Amino acid sequence: MKLNCDMGESFGSWVKGNDAQVMPFVDMANIACGFHAADPLTMDKTVKLAQASGVSIGAHPGYPDLLGFGRRDLQCSADELRSLLVYQIAALDGICRINGTAIDYVKPHGALYNRMAVDDATLDVVMQAVVDYAPRCPLVVMATPDAERLRERAAARGLTLWFEAFSDRAYDDQGRLASRSLPGAVHADCEAIERQVLQMINEGTVTSLNGVRVPIQADTLCIHGDNPLALQVVQRLRGWVQR
Amino acid sequence: MKLNCDMGESFGSWVKGNDAQVMPFVDMANIACGFHAADPLTMDKTVKLAQASGVSIGAHPGYPDLLGFGRRDLQCSADELRSLLVYQIAALDGICRINGTAIDYVKPHGALYNRMAVDDATLDVVMQAVVDYAPRCPLVVMATPDAERLRERAAARGLTLWFEAFSDRAYDDQGRLASRSLPGAVHADCEAIERQVLQMINEGTVTSLNGVRVPIQADTLCIHGDNPLALQVVQRLRGWVQR
Amino acid sequence: MKLNCDMGESFGSWVKGNDAQVMPFVDMANIACGFHAADPLTMDKTVKLAQASGVSIGAHPGYPDLLGFGRRDLQCSADELRSLLVYQIAALDGICRINGTAIDYVKPHGALYNRMAVDDATLDVVMQAVVDYAPRCPLVVMATPDAERLRERAAARGLTLWFEAFSDRAYDDQGRLASRSLPGAVHADCEAIERQVLQMINEGTVTSLNGVRVPIQADTLCIHGDNPLALQVVQRLRGWVQR
Amino acid sequence: MKLNCDMGESFGSWVKGNDAQVMPFVDMANIACGFHAADPLTMDKTVKLAQASGVSIGAHPGYPDLLGFGRRDLQCSADELRSLLVYQIAALDGICRINGTAIDYVKPHGALYNRMAVDDATLDVVMQAVVDYAPRCPLVVMATPDAERLRERAAARGLTLWFEAFSDRAYDDQGRLASRSLPGAVHADCEAIERQVLQMINEGTVTSLNGVRVPIQADTLCIHGDNPLALQVVQRLRGWVQR
Repeated sequence: MKLNCDMGESFGSWVKGNDAQVMPFVDMANIACGFHAADPLTMDKTVKLAQASGVSIGAHPGYPDLLGFGRRDLQCSADELRSLLVYQIAALDGICRINGTAIDYVKPHGALYNRMAVDDATLDVVMQAVVDYAPRCPLVVMATPDAERLRERAAARGLTLWFEAFSDRAYDDQGRLASRSLPGAVHADCEAIERQVLQMINEGTVTSLNGVRVPIQADTLCIHGDNPLALQVVQRLRGWVQR
Repeated sequence: MKLNCDMGESFGSWVKGNDAQVMPFVDMANIACGFHAADPLTMDKTVKLAQASGVSIGAHPGYPDLLGFGRRDLQCSADELRSLLVYQIAALDGICRINGTAIDYVKPHGALYNRMAVDDATLDVVMQAVVDYAPRCPLVVMATPDAERLRERAAARGLTLWFEAFSDRAYDDQGRLASRSLPGAVHADCEAIERQVLQMINEGTVTSLNGVRVPIQADTLCIHGDNPLALQVVQRLRGWVQR
Repeated sequence: MKLNCDMGESFGSWVKGNDAQVMPFVDMANIACGFHAADPLTMDKTVKLAQASGVSIGAHPGYPDLLGFGRRDLQCSADELRSLLVYQIAALDGICRINGTAIDYVKPHGALYNRMAVDDATLDVVMQAVVDYAPRCPLVVMATPDAERLRERAAARGLTLWFEAFSDRAYDDQGRLASRSLPGAVHADCEAIERQVLQMINEGTVTSLNGVRVPIQADTLCIHGDNPLALQVVQRLRGWVQR
Repeated sequence: MKLNCDMGESFGSWVKGNDAQVMPFVDMANIACGFHAADPLTMDKTVKLAQASGVSIGAHPGYPDLLGFGRRDLQCSADELRSLLVYQIAALDGICRINGTAIDYVKPHGALYNRMAVDDATLDVVMQAVVDYAPRCPLVVMATPDAERLRERAAARGLTLWFEAFSDRAYDDQGRLASRSLPGAVHADCEAIERQVLQMINEGTVTSLNGVRVPIQADTLCIHGDNPLALQVVQRLRGWVQR
């Protein structure tokens, strides 16, 4: 199981995350593409940072909402969504190219990621945009109980899905992320994070906010870089999770 | 001599230019990339429009200044400039890719275009960014008296330059564009535009605001799409300028 | 019944509407405040235009979404909504002040206006923001069948409501605006607009998209400035609607 | 001599500065107004924070350049500058009003502040904008050798100037701020800052980067909140500088 982390979330003179410190411990860097966070120079620096640690680079496109950090849903037509995805993915891929590399995968951000998990029409647009721009790049989606159905839907397009679980986010009884507005939705201590991760690795389950054990099968594990515990967590996880 | 026109300069619900009407008459569409004008959906529509008329597609990157339409100089470090150029060029190229095409050339916009014409350090960054991202794409620069020097500078990087003259902008005695703030800087009638173009084609000269005849050698001729006369002008020019 | 029109919807170099031509025919100018449209200079010019025609000035605040022209819903906390409303209202009021005038009323824009009409919590925040910043300014809301209930809710805060009907938008059977995504939602010819307005004035009713006659009592009538028919419509309405 | 500090420089989810910790130690809070930093909610929180510590509130307007944090010069016409100043000042004043207070002074930010110090035309626009919107509010300008000339220029408009010196920025031989691009332009240790401040208080002079002693008379002393030493510095200064 690979460790992935949202990276490149600074904007102009505003710094977010500890990219330089966290990078050496992860396998995959989801790099923001300028719509919910990041700017071209931040993207360039983050690509170089990932390269220096031999970390895979993923495009992390979001809704055009800097103020809301891409965490608010935003109504887009299918054409609009498709074009804003390809715009962002290609922009990062271009920054990769002048650094002698390329994107390895795509993982949508925030509200777009969440909407994709509950709205098949949105998922279809995202899957097609990835296939059209980067036919060999897998798409990272939330590990949910209906993984098999999604895998088939993607395969029909020739697209590979990577399922992702979250180390620092609580789950609901359906195996979906609990809303950030709920108390306890983000684990605030290392022990809770470790317990959740070890249970995922050892049992293939997660315990929901209500105490229900829900099956979860993940290819990759997300650590949030803007969690103040990120560095501490990622160092400990690195010890258990084989590269 | 090819006709080029700035296209895709709408933004969200704001429309600028008559792209659909002008497109059939030009050879090259300089498509805005979202920083001074355009948004991903506008770019997608403009790429499709260019394809439908068999028109070459050029990336038209600018400074990140929607409010100023990229016409105000903006201090950027070399690294910042390089990354914001590649970001925009690659974003448009990605939109082209999902439409089955690719960018053919790069032409910077507005204040960046003007700064490039007077500041070799900026020109170097732009030339290198184009070579690094799109090694086979020519860069469009202003036709100036020191064309030969620029051509050599570019050739040393393996880059082709296309020199551009302007149909609707007045020139100064050095063969550079007169500032938009000067009276008469933008030709307001078709006759002045035609006179200037015919003189460029027939004599290889332009008459400056002060009445001086200045030599000018151009590969391509720019028509401004936001000029209210654009459609009328381009139709008449099309008659004289061979494809 | 007063005629109101959204004004100042240009942004930077992008022009929208025919403010200079429409202004002399209306009673109230709803001036955009920079979040969904307009910029400070556009606001200043529009205030001067309204003054020159002796037209009342209303603040027309919207969601911070230039790309979507404030027409997409955007999740905001109560505190966030309150502060973004006051920010915009005060900004316009400041522009009025240096021109020797002041805002006369407030009318929210687009998705915020629509949400206010269906979500009492949002309406409460808007009402309180207006009362807190501009205690004597009325708030314009959609004329709906539950007008009396809203009027009381506002009166409890010491706030006056002005109810608004639309000349160029179709209604549903509940007397609410039909969604812009429905066919026929925006009247495309002058005759339909006139018919609707005359029926509102003479009968106090509107005929819904389904053909149902719905009662509607309005203090003011909205003409959309970005409707291509705006000028034509407002000139004819001016003949029937007394100042 | 009063201590002032730039505050409210966070944006959306990006945090900058230690406002809550620094606020109790300063006399004047220069609050960003949303163009180079801050958003309406951040402004509201910062106003409340200033009120809780009994600190004066100043509007801190800047150029519309979030990405560049208002530190890049941006060409604006006089009308544009005037309107963007009043827009920002009034927006903050409105946020103050709903919190039961009002702005006490105006201090422009970054590149605008610097341009004002070297370009009389810009200074005139700023002075007039302040007088027109807030006739009783002083304007904070850089303490320079030609203070007397500026004071008269302002007095002719009925405007009071407050002259400001900088604790953590190095000076040039003309008594102006050394460019941030020069080595040593920002003092990196507390001792250098204290030495400069004590010399300003005790001798009315500052020692330039070149070692020249330059006279400087200041009404207020600026501490930069985004300086990592800000909290430490402000606590020590508070000991010497009487309220």
